Amino acid sequence: AVNGSRLWQSLMDMAQIGATPKGGVCRLALTDLDKQGRDLFVRWCEEAGCTISVDKMGNIFARRPGRDDSLPPVIMGSHLDSQPTGGKYDGVYGVLAGLEVVRSLNDMNYVTEAPVEVAVWTNEEGSRFAPAMVSSGVFAGVFDLDYGLSRADLDGKTMGEELARIGYAGDQEVGGRKVGAYFEAHIEQGPILEVEGKTIGVVTDCQGQRWYEITFTGQEAHAGPTPMVRRKDALLGAARVVDAVNRIGMKYGPLACATVGLMQIHPNSRNVIPGRVFFTVDFRHPDDGILKAMDGELRAEVERIAGEIGLETEFQQIWYYAPIKFDESCVAAVRKGVERTGHSFRDIVSGAGHDACYLSKVAPTAMVFIPCIDGISHNEVEETTPEWSTAGCEVLLHAVLDRANA
Amino acid sequence: AVNGSRLWQSLMDMAQIGATPKGGVCRLALTDLDKQGRDLFVRWCEEAGCTISVDKMGNIFARRPGRDDSLPPVIMGSHLDSQPTGGKYDGVYGVLAGLEVVRSLNDMNYVTEAPVEVAVWTNEEGSRFAPAMVSSGVFAGVFDLDYGLSRADLDGKTMGEELARIGYAGDQEVGGRKVGAYFEAHIEQGPILEVEGKTIGVVTDCQGQRWYEITFTGQEAHAGPTPMVRRKDALLGAARVVDAVNRIGMKYGPLACATVGLMQIHPNSRNVIPGRVFFTVDFRHPDDGILKAMDGELRAEVERIAGEIGLETEFQQIWYYAPIKFDESCVAAVRKGVERTGHSFRDIVSGAGHDACYLSKVAPTAMVFIPCIDGISHNEVEETTPEWSTAGCEVLLHAVLDRANA
Ligand SMILES: NC(=O)NCCC(=O)O
Ligand SMILES: NC(=O)NCCC(=O)O
Repeated sequence: AVNGSRLWQSLMDMAQIGATPKGGVCRLALTDLDKQGRDLFVRWCEEAGCTISVDKMGNIFARRPGRDDSLPPVIMGSHLDSQPTGGKYDGVYGVLAGLEVVRSLNDMNYVTEAPVEVAVWTNEEGSRFAPAMVSSGVFAGVFDLDYGLSRADLDGKTMGEELARIGYAGDQEVGGRKVGAYFEAHIEQGPILEVEGKTIGVVTDCQGQRWYEITFTGQEAHAGPTPMVRRKDALLGAARVVDAVNRIGMKYGPLACATVGLMQIHPNSRNVIPGRVFFTVDFRHPDDGILKAMDGELRAEVERIAGEIGLETEFQQIWYYAPIKFDESCVAAVRKGVERTGHSFRDIVSGAGHDACYLSKVAPTAMVFIPCIDGISHNEVEETTPEWSTAGCEVLLHAVLDRANA
Repeated sequence: AVNGSRLWQSLMDMAQIGATPKGGVCRLALTDLDKQGRDLFVRWCEEAGCTISVDKMGNIFARRPGRDDSLPPVIMGSHLDSQPTGGKYDGVYGVLAGLEVVRSLNDMNYVTEAPVEVAVWTNEEGSRFAPAMVSSGVFAGVFDLDYGLSRADLDGKTMGEELARIGYAGDQEVGGRKVGAYFEAHIEQGPILEVEGKTIGVVTDCQGQRWYEITFTGQEAHAGPTPMVRRKDALLGAARVVDAVNRIGMKYGPLACATVGLMQIHPNSRNVIPGRVFFTVDFRHPDDGILKAMDGELRAEVERIAGEIGLETEFQQIWYYAPIKFDESCVAAVRKGVERTGHSFRDIVSGAGHDACYLSKVAPTAMVFIPCIDGISHNEVEETTPEWSTAGCEVLLHAVLDRANA
């Protein structure tokens, strides 16, 4: 019922924009390349007969009218921004699977009862601007618009400025409208489906997350004549926290995840004892109580380590959301879609955050996962197969029809 | 005999070039600001009647003729480049104390037997281009010219390119000429003189150094759905090495120093497990055997840590020099200078590397230290006093006269 090779070709075409030497993509949110990706998506949607609107967070909605266009739309979507060394599918798959559903409905001259939309959410990755999923968060009323537009990258450029610069500061209010249902297709980004030989993951839950920003300030001094015992080495402190974060992750395993992904060392000179280090911590767990326990251990470790070296600490939890349960009827619609298409499946908990997490606050929501090779994502070698890609899109189509004709 | 306030004023004037908000200096080697500093020095020397020459490494020599100008010159000098967040005195003091000696000789219409030169050595800090003291090293024949000119910064720009760009790629051959003696005045950069209440450090030795570059390669992956046990986190490895480096420094203390000053994380994104980390290690000890033992422990720790996480390792010692003993007769000349001027003093071992270390390979060499406040250097708050500055310059004058009239 869907054209899998057309979908695959679109994935490959989009992957040209920001293509990296190792087969991945670098298309950071609100860069010129992000604009190119958005422009291509908009052109494709217009060619498919959709009407485009853009909201003040730069979220794009491509609408295919329903028989009763006053009904709340069923929205499919995900994001087009990537990590600095990201893959071809993370986010893009959910957007283009949505487009393929529209194209397939067109091929069949099928008119849904309710309108169907394909959404592109701005800055899902949280790499250039933290936190992740910020624009779907504004749409869902979790963040206010000012907060969203004032998120700044490490050079101090804000999302508001960058949206205006690339011409995607839309005029539509963000959110505040009724959504019939939201479905997001995505690569799993973990190893479970592939290991168990299942084609489809029916996503029932999403683990909770806490993100932190920590700055240690010690004292810059000469690496030569400064005795070890007189030092206040901010990097030594940060290093010990990296190790502690790993210990906390292992302790609450196998479901806990704990990562330091970003670190900036000041002044970053070979023969200077680092005086200041800024770094981030990313904690995840499907159980909110455990996530809270991890939080407590991190705070204690940071305090202990700063104390033993004599560092000043700025510590901020900059993002938190509790584990999320998706809507039972939407999950059932996905499961029905799997049954109709006959693909193998299992229920699964998402380890990554997705725009669906925030959409679930304002709309009945569910997700469809397909496997990715070796569970690898946020890496240029991220890969899936045309067969899995087609299967996920078929399930998405059925789930959408289930809700758009309800 | 010297004009201490003129010297202090020159220090303050030079500190305007690259001045930082916290009272320090950022004048990285071969930047536009370094050019401005060099230009100012050259102008001052010409006003003092000196002849300027520049060699192919950009080392500058300002020459005041002797009565017998065929005698090998007595050279005073140090460097004008700074750390990214450096101070006003590190290097600059030795250069401008040399200039003040020349100005004082002019004031007195004093003609030395041998010519006297003030030298500025290119890229002593080793911050923008590693290793440190590279151009005095070429002058001393420790490195060849190609090696020196091909040193590259983290953006890949070479010293040769940057020398040409700022107009300081001179035409004179580097080194290969006879030097009567070399004297370098410098702030101590450590706490000993101030703690003991001594005005002058008579530098007898310089500790040895080993610098390393290490790259750990693991696997980039998503911080959310990637189980802890499947990770190959390059930053976790680097963090453990930072801790190990500190342990090694403490173990061989109180004289050992061990520092990780620079680290680059790839891709440096909050929700990506770091796939590659590049970092440096700086080891120092006055005993070459202990320095060798530290080297062995580092190699073992890096191998162990890489093994436990599953990381690939590139490990390179990029710089080594054994502890250095300065020339006894030059050290005696400094000591005589201290006696004549009546300042308090003690013998001292330099914890930092200095151009004098390499000059000592081709010329009788010694150094004069003055205290700096709290022993702090490689920091914007680096400070000394006009009194100490004057005292060091007086001692330098006497030591130079001792050798230039010998
Ligand atoms: N799906 C995905 O990669 N989202 C980025 C936000 C996160 O780190 O969970
Ligand atoms: N004196 C000084 O700061 N030299 C830089 C080279 C070193 O780190 O020893």
